[in-house]
Amino acid sequence: MGANRTVSVDLKAHPYKVHIGEGLLAHVGEIARESSLAGLAAILTDEHVAKLYSEPLRRSLEQEGFVVSSQVVESGESSKSLAVAERVCEALAQSGINRRSFIVALGGGVIGDLAGFVAAIYYRGIPVIHVPTTVMAQVDSSIGGKTAVNLRAGKNLVGAFHQPRVIIADTDTLKTLGRREWNEGFAEVIKYGVIRDASLLSQLEQGITSMPDLVEHCVKIKASYVVEDEFETTGNRALLNFGHTLGHAIEAVAGYGKLLHGEAIALGMIAALDVSVRRAGLSAEEAKRVKAVIERYELPNRLPGEISLAAILSTVFADKKFVDGRIRFVVSPQLGKAVLADDIVQADLELALDSIR
Amino acid sequence: MGANRTVSVDLKAHPYKVHIGEGLLAHVGEIARESSLAGLAAILTDEHVAKLYSEPLRRSLEQEGFVVSSQVVESGESSKSLAVAERVCEALAQSGINRRSFIVALGGGVIGDLAGFVAAIYYRGIPVIHVPTTVMAQVDSSIGGKTAVNLRAGKNLVGAFHQPRVIIADTDTLKTLGRREWNEGFAEVIKYGVIRDASLLSQLEQGITSMPDLVEHCVKIKASYVVEDEFETTGNRALLNFGHTLGHAIEAVAGYGKLLHGEAIALGMIAALDVSVRRAGLSAEEAKRVKAVIERYELPNRLPGEISLAAILSTVFADKKFVDGRIRFVVSPQLGKAVLADDIVQADLELALDSIR
Repeated sequence: MGANRTVSVDLKAHPYKVHIGEGLLAHVGEIARESSLAGLAAILTDEHVAKLYSEPLRRSLEQEGFVVSSQVVESGESSKSLAVAERVCEALAQSGINRRSFIVALGGGVIGDLAGFVAAIYYRGIPVIHVPTTVMAQVDSSIGGKTAVNLRAGKNLVGAFHQPRVIIADTDTLKTLGRREWNEGFAEVIKYGVIRDASLLSQLEQGITSMPDLVEHCVKIKASYVVEDEFETTGNRALLNFGHTLGHAIEAVAGYGKLLHGEAIALGMIAALDVSVRRAGLSAEEAKRVKAVIERYELPNRLPGEISLAAILSTVFADKKFVDGRIRFVVSPQLGKAVLADDIVQADLELALDSIR
Repeated sequence: MGANRTVSVDLKAHPYKVHIGEGLLAHVGEIARESSLAGLAAILTDEHVAKLYSEPLRRSLEQEGFVVSSQVVESGESSKSLAVAERVCEALAQSGINRRSFIVALGGGVIGDLAGFVAAIYYRGIPVIHVPTTVMAQVDSSIGGKTAVNLRAGKNLVGAFHQPRVIIADTDTLKTLGRREWNEGFAEVIKYGVIRDASLLSQLEQGITSMPDLVEHCVKIKASYVVEDEFETTGNRALLNFGHTLGHAIEAVAGYGKLLHGEAIALGMIAALDVSVRRAGLSAEEAKRVKAVIERYELPNRLPGEISLAAILSTVFADKKFVDGRIRFVVSPQLGKAVLADDIVQADLELALDSIR
């Protein structure tokens, strides 16, 4: 593990490390041991990932003396439900998992959210290790302790803050991603470039030379927001929502599964760039530059034809608080910077959505 | 509200108050307002309590300008499930409840646990007010932020720590309790007498002159344990489990609903007194004194005839960690004191169970 790197997430109450590198799956057992974990290990993964990586993960844990059980759920967003969380909890109880055990979340964003939530509520909270296997999960969703499942009424409406004990991002696992899933993850990388560090955009323009370097760079950025604002109360962590206010609404209105999460966020970012040019002083050249990177990763730049702008707006209205017709909305005044504007009005969003119609 | 009293639960991150007194239901609205709550209020209660107290509670909230919605679940332990929690969350979403709203838990222990858990996970946590309407909920379960629902595999296996914004204990609501429910609550009062303050036992022996005084006394004791050990990590809060290790097992083996929770705890306490006499130096006279108080409140002092001692023991073994044949078990060396003994063996528990057969 000599060439591998770690990023610290320095939360006062429960600091933890993100290990990033090639071939780390074989070292999960020893990292778990170094992270003071003991007892039974319960792997939670989905059908797709189980076929690829469950066995090497199990071997790594067993080599260090852990007794391992495994729960496999269906792949896809439908597993992010309270009903599935309940089935998983019952199965954990049957396997003898208790407060002295821990969960290993092996997979992408859905598994991280589900397993993190189960770990948050089972015995009122047991430790969880994240082993993210997608770009999106490695650069974004596995870090920061936000967990969630969906209601029929909306995505991520139920959840908990529950920080992992440790995160182990094996960049080799990204090699089995399909092209669309691979590209999807770069929406969040591009977002970090826009809101925090424009050098990331240069890297994406020039072509990535090292995935471990890129993941490390992104994890450092994400960790800094999480440490400053663990529970999203000061407004700082809300800057990570650049492109997400409209992106989430677009994803919901298109119908989940139609657009991947990162694809909807790409559309939301293009709209947010339009708002930023119009209301925050971002130059048209800068916006154009970001759009070119979005296209380079084959992410959409136009809404699906059948989608209704009115439906997107009414979804935003249902979710966000408008005060005197104004909404808080993340804009970028300059690439590498973001601020929370509180004077954005409906007409700004309408024009922005028009720009991606 | 002049004659009413408050106890502070001085948790660093989120201190809150417990208001105790007669006629407080009519003041929930103004106390909510003083507690910085705003937006929509969602009452969660059960069918039985709804008939008695929903309307006065609603009026009190509406008088202060809150917009009130209400969810009513079936009375009884079966409502403490993830399936019911999910239905409640969907209904909250349909009522427009969001992170700027709050929940009002109106009822006994089941409602407090369910509503507290829903408040913990809905939008990753929204504020909750507890309005406990049973002795057990007023003196014990509403204080301290432990929330839970049950799995088929066991009681309270899923939950969260989520402290309330404020607690409002209207002792007038206790007047409608049935005799068995009233008596049940005194199991926890007796427990406080054994583990922390023997003067409570004298009060119970002499007859209670003021329920607000008694509730206040108990709330102060409970709050002190919670403040010292919010997440039950130091072992101090575990002292509150006096009588509960065997009590929980007795409750499970008897079959939920057969014995009320407090009745099972009374049996567990008698057994724990036996262990305390045998292993911790408690005098036989002291144990006898506590048993007399238990009988005064018509709580059981003998296991139901059909119950199997072996089943109780194996339930304890499944839940607790035995190291070299020894278990951590709360004992009282002297009335008003409790310690965590780590040298209690199976034979001690067998003899103790024999004493209540």
